[in-house]
Amino acid sequence: MSNPVEVSCVDVLIVGAGPAGLMLANWMSRTGIKTRIVDKRGTKIFNGQADGLQSRTLEIFDSFGFAYRAWQESNHMLEMCLWNPDDNGLIQRTDRLIDTIQNLSRFQQAVLHQGRIERFFLDSIAEHSKIRVERLVIPETLELDESKVALDNEYPIRISLRHLAEDPAPAQSGVENGLFRSNITEDDTEGILETSKAKEDRTEIVNAKYLIGCDGAHSWVRKQLGDDFALVGEATDYVWGVLDIIPITDFPDIRTRCAIHSQESGSMMIIPRENKLTRLYIQLKEVSTGGRIDRSTISPATILKGAQKVLAPYKIEYKYCDWWTVYQIGQRVGKGFSKHDRIFLAGDAVHTHSPKAGQGMNVSMQDTYNLGWKIAQVVKGEADRSILQTYEAERRKVARDLIDFDHKFSRLFSGKPAKDILDTEGISLAEFKKAFADGNMFTSGVGVKYSGSQIVAVSDEDHPSDKADNEVTSKGQFASKVVLGMRMPSFKVLNQSDARPWHLQERLKSDGRWRILIFAGNIKRSTQLARVNKLGKQLASPTSFLSRFRPVGKPIDSVIEVLSIHSSPRTDCTIFDFPDIFHPYNDEVGWDYWKIFVDDESYHEGHGEAYKNYGIDVETGCAIIVRPDQYVSWIGAVDDYQQMDSFFSRFMKVQS
Amino acid sequence: MSNPVEVSCVDVLIVGAGPAGLMLANWMSRTGIKTRIVDKRGTKIFNGQADGLQSRTLEIFDSFGFAYRAWQESNHMLEMCLWNPDDNGLIQRTDRLIDTIQNLSRFQQAVLHQGRIERFFLDSIAEHSKIRVERLVIPETLELDESKVALDNEYPIRISLRHLAEDPAPAQSGVENGLFRSNITEDDTEGILETSKAKEDRTEIVNAKYLIGCDGAHSWVRKQLGDDFALVGEATDYVWGVLDIIPITDFPDIRTRCAIHSQESGSMMIIPRENKLTRLYIQLKEVSTGGRIDRSTISPATILKGAQKVLAPYKIEYKYCDWWTVYQIGQRVGKGFSKHDRIFLAGDAVHTHSPKAGQGMNVSMQDTYNLGWKIAQVVKGEADRSILQTYEAERRKVARDLIDFDHKFSRLFSGKPAKDILDTEGISLAEFKKAFADGNMFTSGVGVKYSGSQIVAVSDEDHPSDKADNEVTSKGQFASKVVLGMRMPSFKVLNQSDARPWHLQERLKSDGRWRILIFAGNIKRSTQLARVNKLGKQLASPTSFLSRFRPVGKPIDSVIEVLSIHSSPRTDCTIFDFPDIFHPYNDEVGWDYWKIFVDDESYHEGHGEAYKNYGIDVETGCAIIVRPDQYVSWIGAVDDYQQMDSFFSRFMKVQS
Repeated sequence: MSNPVEVSCVDVLIVGAGPAGLMLANWMSRTGIKTRIVDKRGTKIFNGQADGLQSRTLEIFDSFGFAYRAWQESNHMLEMCLWNPDDNGLIQRTDRLIDTIQNLSRFQQAVLHQGRIERFFLDSIAEHSKIRVERLVIPETLELDESKVALDNEYPIRISLRHLAEDPAPAQSGVENGLFRSNITEDDTEGILETSKAKEDRTEIVNAKYLIGCDGAHSWVRKQLGDDFALVGEATDYVWGVLDIIPITDFPDIRTRCAIHSQESGSMMIIPRENKLTRLYIQLKEVSTGGRIDRSTISPATILKGAQKVLAPYKIEYKYCDWWTVYQIGQRVGKGFSKHDRIFLAGDAVHTHSPKAGQGMNVSMQDTYNLGWKIAQVVKGEADRSILQTYEAERRKVARDLIDFDHKFSRLFSGKPAKDILDTEGISLAEFKKAFADGNMFTSGVGVKYSGSQIVAVSDEDHPSDKADNEVTSKGQFASKVVLGMRMPSFKVLNQSDARPWHLQERLKSDGRWRILIFAGNIKRSTQLARVNKLGKQLASPTSFLSRFRPVGKPIDSVIEVLSIHSSPRTDCTIFDFPDIFHPYNDEVGWDYWKIFVDDESYHEGHGEAYKNYGIDVETGCAIIVRPDQYVSWIGAVDDYQQMDSFFSRFMKVQS
Repeated sequence: MSNPVEVSCVDVLIVGAGPAGLMLANWMSRTGIKTRIVDKRGTKIFNGQADGLQSRTLEIFDSFGFAYRAWQESNHMLEMCLWNPDDNGLIQRTDRLIDTIQNLSRFQQAVLHQGRIERFFLDSIAEHSKIRVERLVIPETLELDESKVALDNEYPIRISLRHLAEDPAPAQSGVENGLFRSNITEDDTEGILETSKAKEDRTEIVNAKYLIGCDGAHSWVRKQLGDDFALVGEATDYVWGVLDIIPITDFPDIRTRCAIHSQESGSMMIIPRENKLTRLYIQLKEVSTGGRIDRSTISPATILKGAQKVLAPYKIEYKYCDWWTVYQIGQRVGKGFSKHDRIFLAGDAVHTHSPKAGQGMNVSMQDTYNLGWKIAQVVKGEADRSILQTYEAERRKVARDLIDFDHKFSRLFSGKPAKDILDTEGISLAEFKKAFADGNMFTSGVGVKYSGSQIVAVSDEDHPSDKADNEVTSKGQFASKVVLGMRMPSFKVLNQSDARPWHLQERLKSDGRWRILIFAGNIKRSTQLARVNKLGKQLASPTSFLSRFRPVGKPIDSVIEVLSIHSSPRTDCTIFDFPDIFHPYNDEVGWDYWKIFVDDESYHEGHGEAYKNYGIDVETGCAIIVRPDQYVSWIGAVDDYQQMDSFFSRFMKVQS
């Protein structure tokens, strides 16, 4: 080491470029935060791995503008068939269930392999920023200067990064590497470091404001944080064989998601996928904690044999196998998600579970989807650091719910814990069906509900009487079908100016902005118009919260955007019937025609009935504050300016 | 010229890489034909130019897999407002019309500038082939050896191409070049050639089987073909000013398509566009044939002033102008579209007209969309050369219809031909509305109907009695709402195997294949099942037309694909209830799960009611032959194997 070591500063350093890390980098690309993202691997994933996409995940992709790619390429999960033994012990289709509850989301659950998801992220990040994944980079040492953690503009994190001269990791494609990146393999970080030390590598020091460990189940970042951050949980591990093949079979439901319980040969799950592929999940056996299965005994042929037994008398074969693996996963949650709100853990680094319900990649991405905008607002000085505390509060609960669900789901799927593939005990059909239906809110990802905090108001039902003058309480009765703390549901509304129908969610883009949705009601009634005009005047005032929290020199809608949806007949109005602040004027480009919407019949796509579906009174409307990640923070009267101001004043910083 | 001149052979040579040339190259990329495409310009279009996208054009884009890009980026045209003077002479909104008739297409008309369309084509071509546009290449000489034109495998065309060392064409971006590529500019090919001769350029000789001139209104290819190919038509020319701006205005309908007739100041059209832009069309004046307007008198300010007068008392200004131009266009159609079915002309090279109805780019692209698959089938030896004759027969009629429509539309829009922008004579509102509504089938592009030919059967209503044994006649009564010779309409059907809803048109991809749509009816009735099974047996026979026309060593569906849509309840069937030929087996990938569909209720997207919407009997079904470009060739009974065989035998070549 004769050369001086390079030292640099960055706002956000992300370790790990899997789905969780890429989601975070993607947020940073949209919010303009100085960011680096490093990964020890030489390439992204090519095939196999996680593949389930929740409805909610597709909504999030849409908020970043690339859901259509996933939606187009993926296989859509519409139906689930249950197969069980009949009186003669032969499997029969006993039921068909809908796979995603109707009207839960614009998107149904879908399946597409992780490599494509990573591709979409990489393209999206490159399109919106100069951030690029730096591969073959391994963190070596980590220090956190606790004296600086409370100071906004400091860089309390010091980390050394080693740049490898060449890729020491094994090639990942092909069937022969079925166990690659399976969690049955041991962590290879130490090995990679060991190998690389002999080479002509380069080391640098990075000072960071924030560090996020998205580095998987063997997280290096987590290990540096010590025992307070260990994963804790379920002691019993399950072992699953997974086979991605183009099936050659006479089984009629091979293109349908199936749960098959055989009489004598255990059970399996079929997940039809993109590109003619089908994934088969077969529980192989159970081992006790700490036990490691003998890898040499497992091959694609082993897994296929299991599948053939379950499916008999139907036949199944393949000539093309895209990927296979064996999973042995404990159900564990990290004790801590954040250290001093400067170092964060996300994704597999803080929760592991079985892959079967297709949840893992989704929950991991949603961890950093929750975190990203908060970090961006703090780094930009728009919001107080204290909002970062909500990350652990909100996401640790989700992780625990996931483990609970997974626990129940895995147990049900395999009946009493199966001793091996020949275990014949199955669960009752009724039990399975109920669990599947109950789980749909959860598996679709739209069931997540964040509790009251600085950034989610408490409900006035929870605090009916003893509220201080300035306390912010949400009045759910103004939008009886919108749930405080859950993501804003989506229905179609029309742009006032050009009649184009939009799902409301399409206008809630992930660009880091808060939004106030003004359901203006029927402005053709003079009393209602007076309320709306009064609100407009308050919002437009130089002392309004819109003005106080507006960064110097930036447009009025750069941190908080006002969108309005009225319920008068579209053809009776123009945007000039609304306060100017609802369609702000700009010297260069004139009036804004993309902020005022109406709940009316469209020319080609029917009537969204948004007011009705949100449970909002069409005459008097309401106001809803929506977070940058589309979760509902507050519901109140359309003209309750004071509560809106109080809400934002709790955490937004006055700019001057 | 001391170096030997390079000589090479190519199946298809395309001159001109505008929308018509790119559409053709795109077909070639999908069908694997050895193709070159050259253009004299150094770059593609960046902004301005043509912008209207018909519903039918979007359907075609979708058949190539990139409609979603256009649909996402474009501005959708949903509504048209008419403004006319009131009794006080002030303009008032007098009417709102729907812009695309309901249920005509999955897509409504949209607006997006030509540069993006070219980008989508370039990406699509690159993704599917090694074909790349060769820029700065100019054809110099053309010879056609008439002794070879009838011989399939000959290269009767000899053309010399000059590769320019540098771009002699003017830069195209920016407002200052508003007249660039406007047809008011003189043809610059000669000038470019002249300039380039002094440079160190390279010349090559290309022998081609087919040459397609997509080289615009000043077509060099057309000129080489002599006077028999001249454009003929309307002697009176109109002059229009066009301004693409981000408008700053208090006019409330600026984001709606508007036709505005003012009392004193002439008329204008507003076309709202993507990226906050709005296009204004203003008729400036009329000049007689051969007259050229004085370019120095026209500037964006001239055009804006016209707009301000029409819009008064509303105000309009701009700070950003994206593009502007002046058009002076005659309405003309070429005398011939093809020489010996070896050299073809397409797009502006054979028809010119006013831009106002947003038709030009669409009709041009549809010229080569009509031609491309025919050339591909002939080059591959799948079909007889004689099908190429249908290009001129089909497209010359469309061009003439376009001119007729344009003539009427232009005249109506400006009332009696306006002498200048101050001409006060307007047309009656009733007249305008009727013309607009009548024109909708035409302007959407779905009204095109090709007449009987080798590749479109005659209707049995036209030839009721005197038919020969072997004559193929279409029996429209089997699908009363499907029109012979028009494009197959689209309704949603479900995939039998996975319940996924598809617009039927989404399964009619532009990949060069003919399709037989077997509307199998209710196969739960044994008589119907027997008919379907009999057809399946005939189709699967080694002497069937599927077998006879199948290229050696290729899959059974490589030239003619059988898709079936049945009307039995989906959950009562599996694909194994249908003849194997309906879901062919492949040794490598098993059964085909993507060819059998059902007209049934979907889980999330309602019921497509395809049988009802096509006017097909749900019990007995029917069969429909659809061309590779989605036009309907024949309608008949579901089991009329003999007519299907006879139809294809008219032009398909037996392979052996």
